[in-house]
Amino acid sequence: MSGRRGLDYQSAGVDLEKAEREKEGFRDLLESTRDGRTLSGLGLFGGLYQVPPEVGDPVLVSSADGVGSKLKVAFLSGVHDTVGRDIASHCVNDILVQGAVPLFFLDYLAVGVVEEDVVQAVVRGVSEGCRENCCVLLGGETAQMPDFYAAGEYDLAGFVVGIVSRDRILDGSGVRAGDVLLGLPSSGLHTNGYTLARKILFDAGGLHVDDPFPGLDGSVGEVLLRVHRSYLTLLRGELERGSLRALAHVTGGGIPGNLPRSLPAGLGAEIRRDSWSVPPLFRSLQKLGSVEEEEMFRVFNMGVGMVLIVSPEDAEPVLGRLEASGERAWVLGRVVTEPGVRFI
Amino acid sequence: MSGRRGLDYQSAGVDLEKAEREKEGFRDLLESTRDGRTLSGLGLFGGLYQVPPEVGDPVLVSSADGVGSKLKVAFLSGVHDTVGRDIASHCVNDILVQGAVPLFFLDYLAVGVVEEDVVQAVVRGVSEGCRENCCVLLGGETAQMPDFYAAGEYDLAGFVVGIVSRDRILDGSGVRAGDVLLGLPSSGLHTNGYTLARKILFDAGGLHVDDPFPGLDGSVGEVLLRVHRSYLTLLRGELERGSLRALAHVTGGGIPGNLPRSLPAGLGAEIRRDSWSVPPLFRSLQKLGSVEEEEMFRVFNMGVGMVLIVSPEDAEPVLGRLEASGERAWVLGRVVTEPGVRFI
Repeated sequence: MSGRRGLDYQSAGVDLEKAEREKEGFRDLLESTRDGRTLSGLGLFGGLYQVPPEVGDPVLVSSADGVGSKLKVAFLSGVHDTVGRDIASHCVNDILVQGAVPLFFLDYLAVGVVEEDVVQAVVRGVSEGCRENCCVLLGGETAQMPDFYAAGEYDLAGFVVGIVSRDRILDGSGVRAGDVLLGLPSSGLHTNGYTLARKILFDAGGLHVDDPFPGLDGSVGEVLLRVHRSYLTLLRGELERGSLRALAHVTGGGIPGNLPRSLPAGLGAEIRRDSWSVPPLFRSLQKLGSVEEEEMFRVFNMGVGMVLIVSPEDAEPVLGRLEASGERAWVLGRVVTEPGVRFI
Repeated sequence: MSGRRGLDYQSAGVDLEKAEREKEGFRDLLESTRDGRTLSGLGLFGGLYQVPPEVGDPVLVSSADGVGSKLKVAFLSGVHDTVGRDIASHCVNDILVQGAVPLFFLDYLAVGVVEEDVVQAVVRGVSEGCRENCCVLLGGETAQMPDFYAAGEYDLAGFVVGIVSRDRILDGSGVRAGDVLLGLPSSGLHTNGYTLARKILFDAGGLHVDDPFPGLDGSVGEVLLRVHRSYLTLLRGELERGSLRALAHVTGGGIPGNLPRSLPAGLGAEIRRDSWSVPPLFRSLQKLGSVEEEEMFRVFNMGVGMVLIVSPEDAEPVLGRLEASGERAWVLGRVVTEPGVRFI
């Protein structure tokens, strides 16, 4: 009625009051992850965390990663409380391979126009992932960016900080030719290869998230959203025991792209293809998309989520302890003096 | 010629070789920020950083933030090497207000289909921001997400870790009624309010990034891209001297949204509007968008980028030292026993 109305932030697409309400909703989620070294609550500009005094010559290990296009499956499925667990486990595995255990985690959540309960579900997943990974959700940022993201969509990234004693760092320097490669199963695609998997299933295959995944129990959405597995609990004891010479987290680039990152210059790996059975999930994707074998190994983890490098004499004891804890593990192959990864 | 061709990652929109080339390009940028406590190079899963042994009872302070929609101005201007400096300074200011100095920084860069030189420019800006802020660029993630971001667009977030001795933490607990509020100038919008500023200038005002900014020297793009100022160098000495009772970084929510975060429960602030002169940049935006005065203060920093809270007896000496270093500073007002921020 009053002629031209002045502009404000809300009409421009940013709702500060909604942001405040959201932040209040995060309070309990953050609190649920606190430990005795957490010195800050919600609302400060920075999160405060005491360096554990019991770690001698402490080295911080930090990693950043994003969930990537696995998020598109979450959007299609309307399931928003698992991607936070994915990113927490992804980040924690990345510092675990340097010998570190996690201290705290922060998330970056950038949203288009989404429902408040979606934001709460995402952060609930992050906090659950933090609890599963024994780390504190120390803070984070939720950014309203209506011009960047389609309605109902968002991006989610995570940052982790962990700690290791300087003399316990795993940096590959202890690896020798003849060392044994052990493989631990992945729980699915983890957080890599989703751009290709989506193209195969949804575009080429014409499937819907609610359709049965070809050849598997469960729907396409359920299989694709299987949570990225954390290897922290399983490997923490081995790190303390000093039985691991190196670890490689099999993420983007697959085994050939990641295993060399954990090997010293001049050494490579020889892996027997028949040492483990590639899970049906990957074979189904390959068949549906007519994907070449080499490309499959370059894009997906092919069922191996983590590679352990141990001395020949440690191989049997480590395998024994893993099996005693109910875990399958495969002897994939060995470290050789020819650089690169060769499948035989 | 051969009938149906199999799918691969590249045709799905993710180019692993390009990613490898990009990573190689980052090597020198990361190296340029290294210090003597940096124990890792490019390529490891996690970045390694030694806890400075000289800090007694060390507490880590961490913060995550995004550049937000200031990025849209970078896209329009084709200027990609300043937003990294924005996010580094934003994050560093956020831990500075808890009394911490930065150790290291990680970035998260998610890109649609963009030129490789754009990615290099963004990360070059991040590394420059790290050098300006005396912190190491310890790692980061560059994610190719062609289905999330429009061609030529990206999102950029950052994560900083700093350190403070436990007895030097600024958490507002030392603030008393009667304490003096000092203001330090911002360099522009910093990284907040861009969704509204863009709406005012580009939509309502019909301006182009290359047009002169109404009433100011410089183009719309130049004025909007002014780099978020870091207060680290200016305030580091005061932190060491112990002359600050609290600091507030004026980000999203403006002075009313941020100053209370640095005050203990039960205390508030009284600020004289005539204690500083709101820069023409903000008055131009207000006029062009017919934005109400209160909304302006709720969205923008209005020329005050950082608020210092000092005891009445420290006010003059702190002001004197700031002025001796060539810095303008304003006595904004004082801490009062009525909660909230009141402008008089």
